[in-house]
Amino acid sequence: MTSTAVDVEIVPSYIQDAWWTPAGDVSGTEVRDASTGDLLARVSTDGLDLAAAVEHGRTVGQASLGRLTFHQRALKLKELAQYLNARREVLYEVSHRTGATKIDNMIDIDGGIGVLFTFGSKGRRELPNSQIVVDGPAEVLAKDGSFMGQHIYTRIPGVAVQINAFNFPVWGMLEKLAPAFIAGVPTIVKPATPTGYVAAAAVKLIIESNILPAGSLQLISGSARDLLDHLDYRDAVAFTGSASTANLLKSHPNVAQGGIRFTAEADSLNAAILGPDAVPGTPEFDAYIKSLVTEMTAKAGQKCTSIRRAIVPKDRIQDVADAVRARIEQRVVVGDPRAEGVTMGALASLEQLNDVRAAVQAMVDAGGELAYGTLDAPQVTRADGTVGDSEGAFMSPVLVTWADAEAEAVHSLEAFGPVSSVIGYEDLADAVRLAAMGAGSLVATVATNDPEAARVLVTGIAAHHGRVLVLNREDAKTSTGHGSPVPHLVHGGPGRAGGGEELGGIRSVLHHMQRTAVQGSPNMLTAVTGVWHTGADQNFDDVHPFRKSLAKLKIGDALRSELRQVTLEDITAFANETGDTFYAHTNQEAAAANPFFPGIVAHGYLLLAWGAGLFVEPAPGPVLANYGLENLRFITPVAAGDSIRVTLTAKRITPRETDEYGEVAWDAVLTNQNDEIVATYDVLTLVEK
Amino acid sequence: MTSTAVDVEIVPSYIQDAWWTPAGDVSGTEVRDASTGDLLARVSTDGLDLAAAVEHGRTVGQASLGRLTFHQRALKLKELAQYLNARREVLYEVSHRTGATKIDNMIDIDGGIGVLFTFGSKGRRELPNSQIVVDGPAEVLAKDGSFMGQHIYTRIPGVAVQINAFNFPVWGMLEKLAPAFIAGVPTIVKPATPTGYVAAAAVKLIIESNILPAGSLQLISGSARDLLDHLDYRDAVAFTGSASTANLLKSHPNVAQGGIRFTAEADSLNAAILGPDAVPGTPEFDAYIKSLVTEMTAKAGQKCTSIRRAIVPKDRIQDVADAVRARIEQRVVVGDPRAEGVTMGALASLEQLNDVRAAVQAMVDAGGELAYGTLDAPQVTRADGTVGDSEGAFMSPVLVTWADAEAEAVHSLEAFGPVSSVIGYEDLADAVRLAAMGAGSLVATVATNDPEAARVLVTGIAAHHGRVLVLNREDAKTSTGHGSPVPHLVHGGPGRAGGGEELGGIRSVLHHMQRTAVQGSPNMLTAVTGVWHTGADQNFDDVHPFRKSLAKLKIGDALRSELRQVTLEDITAFANETGDTFYAHTNQEAAAANPFFPGIVAHGYLLLAWGAGLFVEPAPGPVLANYGLENLRFITPVAAGDSIRVTLTAKRITPRETDEYGEVAWDAVLTNQNDEIVATYDVLTLVEK
Repeated sequence: MTSTAVDVEIVPSYIQDAWWTPAGDVSGTEVRDASTGDLLARVSTDGLDLAAAVEHGRTVGQASLGRLTFHQRALKLKELAQYLNARREVLYEVSHRTGATKIDNMIDIDGGIGVLFTFGSKGRRELPNSQIVVDGPAEVLAKDGSFMGQHIYTRIPGVAVQINAFNFPVWGMLEKLAPAFIAGVPTIVKPATPTGYVAAAAVKLIIESNILPAGSLQLISGSARDLLDHLDYRDAVAFTGSASTANLLKSHPNVAQGGIRFTAEADSLNAAILGPDAVPGTPEFDAYIKSLVTEMTAKAGQKCTSIRRAIVPKDRIQDVADAVRARIEQRVVVGDPRAEGVTMGALASLEQLNDVRAAVQAMVDAGGELAYGTLDAPQVTRADGTVGDSEGAFMSPVLVTWADAEAEAVHSLEAFGPVSSVIGYEDLADAVRLAAMGAGSLVATVATNDPEAARVLVTGIAAHHGRVLVLNREDAKTSTGHGSPVPHLVHGGPGRAGGGEELGGIRSVLHHMQRTAVQGSPNMLTAVTGVWHTGADQNFDDVHPFRKSLAKLKIGDALRSELRQVTLEDITAFANETGDTFYAHTNQEAAAANPFFPGIVAHGYLLLAWGAGLFVEPAPGPVLANYGLENLRFITPVAAGDSIRVTLTAKRITPRETDEYGEVAWDAVLTNQNDEIVATYDVLTLVEK
Repeated sequence: MTSTAVDVEIVPSYIQDAWWTPAGDVSGTEVRDASTGDLLARVSTDGLDLAAAVEHGRTVGQASLGRLTFHQRALKLKELAQYLNARREVLYEVSHRTGATKIDNMIDIDGGIGVLFTFGSKGRRELPNSQIVVDGPAEVLAKDGSFMGQHIYTRIPGVAVQINAFNFPVWGMLEKLAPAFIAGVPTIVKPATPTGYVAAAAVKLIIESNILPAGSLQLISGSARDLLDHLDYRDAVAFTGSASTANLLKSHPNVAQGGIRFTAEADSLNAAILGPDAVPGTPEFDAYIKSLVTEMTAKAGQKCTSIRRAIVPKDRIQDVADAVRARIEQRVVVGDPRAEGVTMGALASLEQLNDVRAAVQAMVDAGGELAYGTLDAPQVTRADGTVGDSEGAFMSPVLVTWADAEAEAVHSLEAFGPVSSVIGYEDLADAVRLAAMGAGSLVATVATNDPEAARVLVTGIAAHHGRVLVLNREDAKTSTGHGSPVPHLVHGGPGRAGGGEELGGIRSVLHHMQRTAVQGSPNMLTAVTGVWHTGADQNFDDVHPFRKSLAKLKIGDALRSELRQVTLEDITAFANETGDTFYAHTNQEAAAANPFFPGIVAHGYLLLAWGAGLFVEPAPGPVLANYGLENLRFITPVAAGDSIRVTLTAKRITPRETDEYGEVAWDAVLTNQNDEIVATYDVLTLVEK
C-alpha cells in the first residue's frame, strides 16, 4: 500500500517573502494520501526563524498594507479571487488526495474563493475608502457641543496568526486571510499538517499572482513550534481545530497574560431540532432528513459544523432513523473520490479513522444503538471503479439512536466522522434544554413551519449558538445548508465551540482592529476621523460646493442658503398636488389638537423639497445624482409664516477605485427664522472625480 | 491610633435576596479608616454558599429579569438613579472614611448615579422595547429572497460576576450593574475588601428601594473564594483591578478552558502627550498642566486612568516640571478629607502607601529624578483642621523626570498613587513610539491645537488605547477630563490595560449578550425577531393601517396604493414651486447626458411626497406624526409618463413605557408600472397606544 520513497518533497514554507525549506537532511513528518495511503510529502519547520517571520509581518507587512485603503485592499481580494477562480482545477487535483470528493472540493476551494469575492465586494460597499472605521454616532458630551466623543477602529499593529484545521485547507485559509487583509493586518497562516500541502499549493498560486503586497502573507508548513512566544497584545491568533488544542493555546502565557487577541473556533456537538409540526410527509421532515444525511456524509462528516445531535419529537425517533437509512442507501457511495459516482470519500487519515471508530464504540458502550452502519471496514469504490476492500481511511456512515436523551455521551462525545445521534424530546422547552446540553455550539438547525415554534426554539437556544438555521418549505431549496458558514454571517459559537467569532462580513474585519473612543472638540474629531462633525469649522467660500469635483471638494466645504418663507397657500398647494392631505396640513383645528403641532404645519416632504431647492446648483456639474438620504429627523414644526433655510456641509467623501465618481454625504440642517433646528439629515450624492 | 474593638460589625453580603453574615464567631478581615487607621468593620464570607448564589442568579434572577423588556429595565435604572440621588449624603458620609475628598465622592457616587441615568435613558432611546437586539441589516442569501440571514443578540443565560477595585466602590459597581441589568443578566458583585463597606451601603439603599426584581443583584462582601469554580460559558466575569490579579483569574481553568466570558480592566501606564505646538503660554499647555496635576492628585492618584507618563517635547521637560510644581503648590492641600480645604486625601491603606513608596524608590534607583515631592511623610491637615504629622496613609504628590525616555521603569513600573513621570520625545513618530511602550493603556491625552498633529498622534496611538482625549483650547473647559470614563464611551484598553471593554453605551449591554446569526425565510426571520423582513407575509386587510392604534397594529399590516402617473407638467411644476431646478428635472438634453438618467426624471422628493400622498389617511387617527425617515435609496429613475405606487408595511413597533404613544417604523417601497423598485425607505411615525 504505502510508498516508502524518502525522496518526496518537503512542503515549503513561505516566510519573509521567500520560499523556504529546511537546510540539510531533515526527515520531517510524513503526509499520506487519504484513500491510498501513499506517501505524498513531508513537512518540517526545523530551523525556521519564526521570530523573524513575526517581525517581518509587523514591519514590512504592516507598512505595505498601510499604504492601501480599505477599498484598495478589497479590490486586491477581488483580483485574487478572479486569479484563483481561473486556476481551480490545479487545486482540485491536489485536494482529491485528501479524500475530498468533487462536492467537498467545491465547498473548500470554490467556497474559499467565494469568501474572497464577498469580502472584495463588501469591503468596498460597506467601508470607507480610507483606513479608519467610524463606529456609531458621535456622542455630544458638553451642552454647548464643544466636547464630543466618537468611536473609531484602527488596525491592530501586529500580525494575524491563523492556525487552521485539516478539513478545509483552502477555505479555512482564505476565510481568515480575507478579513485580516482588508483590515490591513498581515497574515501568518499555519495549516494543519495532514492537508497543509493543499494550502501550500494555494499559497503558491497566490504568490505567483503577485497581487498581494510584500509581507502580507506568510505560510508555515509544519509545526508552529514556539510561534506564540513571539506574539503579544498587538497580534491576533485565530485558531480552528479541536477544543483540546484550543484550550492548550488559550493557556499559553502570552494569551492568558500577555494579551494576545485569541479566538477559537472548535468543533461542537451541533444540534438539529425537528419541530413538532414537521411530521413525516411534510416538506420540513424531508428537508430535515436530507440535511442530516448531507451533514453526516459531506467531507465524511469531518466538519466542525456537522449535525451530531438530531433532537426530534420522542415518537419520531424511528421515523427519522428509517428515513435516514433510506436516503443513505439511495444516495451514498463510499470510495476514492477520484472514482465516478463516489459521494463520500475517506477520512483524512487512518489515525482519524481509529479515533472515530473508538468514539462510536464508546457511544455504543454508553447505551447508544447502531440504527445504521457498522464499525466494519466498508466495501468501497476504488479509484479504478472496482468495488471491494481498501486499506484507505474509509468508514460507513453511522446513525446512533438513544433511549436516554440525557446520556452524557450524546452531549459531550464527538465522533469527528460520518456519525450522528438521534434523541427524543417531550416538548419545546425540553428541546431547548437538550440543545443547550451541548454546552455551546457553532450551529443548530430548527426545522419547522410554525412561526411560534420557530420563535420559541430559536430565541431559546440562540445564546448557546453562533448560528441557527430555520429550515422550512420556503427555504429548503435555497438554503445554503446547516453545515456551511457563509461569509456574510458570523461563524463561531460560545462554550465548547471555542467562544470566538469569524466572518460576519465587516464584523470580521473589525475583529482585526482596535476600537478606541476619541474625545475632543468637533474640529479635532474631524481632523482625526476625516468625517465632518457638527460644530466643526465650515468653509463658506464663493464657490458652490456642488461645483467642486472630488479632486477639489474638501470636508467642511459648505453652503448656507437664504431664508424662504412658507405660506399657508404653499402648504395647501403642496397638499393638493401631492395628495398628502393629512389633517396637520389642512385642518387648523384638528392640527392644533395634535400634541406635536401648533396648528397647520408644512409637510416634512415640502421642507425636504424646498431644502433641495435652496441648495441645488441647477446647471450640469460634478454632482451627478442624489441617490439617497439618511438619518432624517424632523425636530421643530414649521407653521405658515415661518421661514426656512438650509445649511449643507460636505461630511464624508468616498472616491471609488473603479469608477470616475464617488459618494459624498452632505450634512443638511434646516433652520427657521429663529435659528431653531427644523430638520437634520444626510444627503447622499454621487460626485465626479 | 487604632481602635482594637472587636465588636465592629461584619459587612453583610446580600445573597439569594437576603442579607447574610457568617454564623458563629468569625473574626474576618479588618477594614480600617484610611485617614485615622481606626478599625471600621470586618469582612468574611466563611460559610457563604457561592454555588447557591450562582444558581439563584441563573434561575430566579434570569426569570425575573426575563419578564421585563429593555425599556422596562432601563426605566427601573432611572428610578433607581432618582432614589439614590436623593440619598447621596448617606454615601458621602461613609465614603469619606476611605480617604475620599468631596470631589472624589462626586466622581464615585454622583458619577455612579450618573451612569444609571445615562443607561436609563439610552436603554429606552437606543434599544427596542423587547428582549432581542437586531444587529445590522438582513443579508439576502438567495437570489429570489427566500433565504436570508439576520444577526440577533440575546442575553447570556447565566450571571454577570463583577469583581471591582477599591478605588471607586460605588461607580465601579453601578457602571457594571447598569449594562448587565439592561441586558437582562443578573449581577453578582464582589467589591474590593478595603472599601467594600461603601458598596454595601449603596446596596443597602438599592435593596431598600425595592426597585430591582428578585435575584437581579447579589453582593459578596469579602473573599469570592471558589466563585469561579461554579461558572461556565453561560456566565460573564468583569474584573477591575491589578494586572496580576487579572492574569491569575484569566488562568483559571473555567476561563482558559471553560469558556467564561472574561473581561479585565487593569490599571495601566497612561500617557499624556504634549503637542509640539503646545508651548508655555498657550491654552493647550495650561490645560495640559492642569490635567496632569488633577490626575496626580484626584483620588490621591489611585485611578486606573491616572496619567503616569507625561510625554513632552524634549526641550519642554523643565517647563512642565516647573509648571506642575507651581500648580501643586498653589492648589493641593493634603489631609483628612473631612477637613475644610483639603484637596487630596489619603491613600486607601498603609499597605497601599508602602507599595507606592517602594515603587517611587525603584524609579529613583532606575534613574528617575524627583522633580517634585519626597518620600517623607508629609505634613497634613487633620480632621480637626490642625496641621502636622499623621499616621494615616498620606503622601506628597511626586513628579519624576527622566533623562532616558526609554528607561524600562517608566513604561512598566506603576506607582498606584500621586505619582507621574515626565519624559521627552524628538518628533511625533517618537512620541507615538514612546506612548506605545506602555504596551496597552486605558487612555491617553493628546494636547494640541494642530489638526495634523492630532491626526498623526491619535491614529498612531489609537490601536494601543481604549480611549484618547484630544485636549485643546476648544474643549479645555468643557472636557470631562483625561481620567474620567463616561458611560457613553468604551472604557478599557488592550494589552496591559486588560484587553477588555466596558461602558460605551449600548455596546456594553451587548457585551452581556450572545450574537447569533439566524438564517431562514423572511417569514421565519420575522417570527424570530419581531421585525418585518422583506418578503414576509403582509396583511392587506380592509382597514388602513394608519387607523390602527398600537393595540391593534401588527407587524406585516400593509397597504398597497393605486398607481399614479407622473407627467412632465408635474415635474416642471414641482421644480418651479420648490426651486429645485436641477437640470435632470428641467433640461431633457442635459439630463440624457447624465450617466444615470434616461432624460428628464422626477425629483426624488417629488416621489417621496407623492408616496406620502398615496399612503396618507387624512383624518385624525392614531398616527400622530411622521418624525423622520431612514435608509432612503433611489433605485430606478422615474421619467415623465411613468407611474408610481407605494407599498407600506408595519416593520417595527416600539410602544413607549412612559407615553401614550410609541414609534412605528414602516417599510416603504415605491414601484413603477413595471413593478420595478423605484425607491426604498423606512418611514418613522409616532402612533397612539
